[in-house]
Amino acid sequence: MPLDPVLTRIDCDLPEAVNRLIALLRIPSISTDPAHAADCDSAADWLVADLASLGFAAEKRPTPGHPMVVAHVDGPGPHLLFYGHYDVQPVDPLDLWHRDPFDPALEDTDKGQVIRARGASDDKGQLMTFIEACRAWKAEHGTLPCKITVFLEGEEESGSPSLVPFLEDNAEELKADIALICDTGLFDARTPGIVTMLRGLLGEELTIRAADMDLHSGMYGGPSINPIRVLARIVAALHDDAGRVTVPGFYDGVPELPDEVARQWQGLGFDAGAFLGAVGLSTPAGEADRTALEMIWSRPTCEVNGITGGYTGAGFKTVLPAEARAKISFRLVGDQDPLAIRENFRKMVQDMLPPDCTASFEGHGASPASRMDISHPAFEKARAALSEEWPKPAAYVGCGGSIPVAGYFKTALGMDSMLIGFAKDDDAIHSPNEKYDLDSFHKGIRSWARILAALSA
Amino acid sequence: MPLDPVLTRIDCDLPEAVNRLIALLRIPSISTDPAHAADCDSAADWLVADLASLGFAAEKRPTPGHPMVVAHVDGPGPHLLFYGHYDVQPVDPLDLWHRDPFDPALEDTDKGQVIRARGASDDKGQLMTFIEACRAWKAEHGTLPCKITVFLEGEEESGSPSLVPFLEDNAEELKADIALICDTGLFDARTPGIVTMLRGLLGEELTIRAADMDLHSGMYGGPSINPIRVLARIVAALHDDAGRVTVPGFYDGVPELPDEVARQWQGLGFDAGAFLGAVGLSTPAGEADRTALEMIWSRPTCEVNGITGGYTGAGFKTVLPAEARAKISFRLVGDQDPLAIRENFRKMVQDMLPPDCTASFEGHGASPASRMDISHPAFEKARAALSEEWPKPAAYVGCGGSIPVAGYFKTALGMDSMLIGFAKDDDAIHSPNEKYDLDSFHKGIRSWARILAALSA
Repeated sequence: MPLDPVLTRIDCDLPEAVNRLIALLRIPSISTDPAHAADCDSAADWLVADLASLGFAAEKRPTPGHPMVVAHVDGPGPHLLFYGHYDVQPVDPLDLWHRDPFDPALEDTDKGQVIRARGASDDKGQLMTFIEACRAWKAEHGTLPCKITVFLEGEEESGSPSLVPFLEDNAEELKADIALICDTGLFDARTPGIVTMLRGLLGEELTIRAADMDLHSGMYGGPSINPIRVLARIVAALHDDAGRVTVPGFYDGVPELPDEVARQWQGLGFDAGAFLGAVGLSTPAGEADRTALEMIWSRPTCEVNGITGGYTGAGFKTVLPAEARAKISFRLVGDQDPLAIRENFRKMVQDMLPPDCTASFEGHGASPASRMDISHPAFEKARAALSEEWPKPAAYVGCGGSIPVAGYFKTALGMDSMLIGFAKDDDAIHSPNEKYDLDSFHKGIRSWARILAALSA
Repeated sequence: MPLDPVLTRIDCDLPEAVNRLIALLRIPSISTDPAHAADCDSAADWLVADLASLGFAAEKRPTPGHPMVVAHVDGPGPHLLFYGHYDVQPVDPLDLWHRDPFDPALEDTDKGQVIRARGASDDKGQLMTFIEACRAWKAEHGTLPCKITVFLEGEEESGSPSLVPFLEDNAEELKADIALICDTGLFDARTPGIVTMLRGLLGEELTIRAADMDLHSGMYGGPSINPIRVLARIVAALHDDAGRVTVPGFYDGVPELPDEVARQWQGLGFDAGAFLGAVGLSTPAGEADRTALEMIWSRPTCEVNGITGGYTGAGFKTVLPAEARAKISFRLVGDQDPLAIRENFRKMVQDMLPPDCTASFEGHGASPASRMDISHPAFEKARAALSEEWPKPAAYVGCGGSIPVAGYFKTALGMDSMLIGFAKDDDAIHSPNEKYDLDSFHKGIRSWARILAALSA
């Protein structure tokens, strides 16, 4: 089955593909917010219907949280499992969006056309690159070049609580020759990447409580402990002056980068100044003795993703609050043990508490880092296919984000994963004004069409 | 004009007085929130109408912010200026209230009946004690025993921006022989107090900005500076390990307590354990070498009244925010200079900023501490009158809160102030479930009736 007519059809069908993506983006499937549960359900329904229209045996499958979409179609080649997620991040601060995040539009920018909406890049636009590639194959040849299972999750942005049980309960059905995951980015606008290292993620919500009610800072200020100050001391103590994380045992299991990988990364010509400059920064923070690329791909971090306490509205209120809270996350690498780090972090916090204060903790996910086995033959086939489509050859790269599903596919299904995606650094995923370049979408679809051909050969 | 029938009338009229207070409490006059501007106006209208019904020449007087209420009535004795404020604090966190904060009710508690609502104690309940005392005098004798000006502000909880200009523009009209201010508390349930020292207040809202957009902590975590962490380091650095504030020059102008005052305060038998225990605390925080009463009445403090940054909603969001904010206030004593402290604080923050971060500041009030001149003969007359009403003799006390109007009456009108109030430590002012004891209200009204008699003699 020749590839060229498939690519031509993709080019011709692009406006309709954009319209389909826009329809999906209109559904505000914010998984972390219980108020949007019905929207998550609607997004799953939309995808089931779309996959069924391509000849997939597609189903919405219940979980204790948001449903999974599972769809199978037969074909001559190997069995591929494609993974994406249909849920999206929250949209606050809403006032920083230039348009309604769920009223998608194609916009002209000085870097070309973009599709603007929450989820445009992460991950609805990305998952639709694969589905559109299947659509073109099916339309042109009446069949797909491989046996394909599409597996779409609705809880990726809220810690994937149902994922591992679902994989374990449906292992026979989901196990394939290799998994394809589309939730990562290009290395740069001209260079696609296949991710071979993913950081893990440990989330902790910490609440410090002191008095049993909010107090007036005039009546009580002085002798009464202020939980915001206690929390600030704890947060400030999480890093030393050299930018290293101070949680005891934190660096246990953090490997040094092999010389060969370090050399390859140097060859990528990563421009830290341009990377930071694009978001208004200039000076690498973090560990003083590491390059910016190491900090993102191969070094662990600790970040505060949110903090709140006391009066935060307009004006001023002289309150001593009863509690203060922080959301703290750790990006993990190598063999760092998330559960050991959780325990050590909690003990460190407990040890820092002054009298009359208590700490409570709520865990949000605990996934170790993962590394791919690139000796699987699919890797070189996919790399060659990507290199045909893009101006520069595809590279094996790291990824700062955490896509624990790759690890779960390995542990629960014994299956390797290839992480290939077309997002750009300036897509503003998880931020206001998220977008996906039309070029990412178009060449992403073409890339998958080529990869399907390469893997079926 | 005999006092006893006035007191009897107050006792008989108490249920109607409570109903009038409840009507005033229904008006959500939150001055710091622009959405409640019309409510502030309604509260002023309500008070004008009520004072007019007592024979006062009462007017709502415009300011650039919320209006003032000014009401005059003639009488035989000295000219008294009574001050209170009709605006109230915000009500968040609303979910901690056991009832709608603006649906007031008389509740039975194990400590007696209380009036529960935002503003019940601070300051609507307190200001109505004086108006009800006037009502009883007027009803019983057809006239009041003194010439009285009632002056009610609507911006006390939002920094009183219009107060000084209004005092200056209306100095001739407002100047009286002495000011009576009802916005303070009892020393304890059996002991009334006349406040002779008030702490000043300096408010600063600090915003730390880094990247020009929110970032994904997977893509950017490591090399990108996190403004929450920067803010936490600044907040943590504001106190040393002994609880002293580290802003340079902060303790300039902080006097040691005169031995005589220290002895008098010791005689009050302040129970720090009970004071803290009432709000779920046990160990005095703050300066390690000071008593809890000193910390509240005669020592300066620095507190964080609010902090916010990043994602603070339900669930987790792996964001590196573009900015983080804190509301920080300083309680001032003696001759501490608010403007010098503001300058030194801002410079200290600027000096702590890492590369790529900026700090911006918004000032919220800057009032020095004030001390009353108790040689004015009204002080001993009022103290004797209060001692008649309450189980234990009235005491001259300090006050941790900041009531800058007393200082402004001195500087703008050349007038001394007596601060007399009937709030209790457990009134939860500025907190959820604010209340005013029915006993405070009842004996407060009786106290003012007695003070009016004493001052007219």
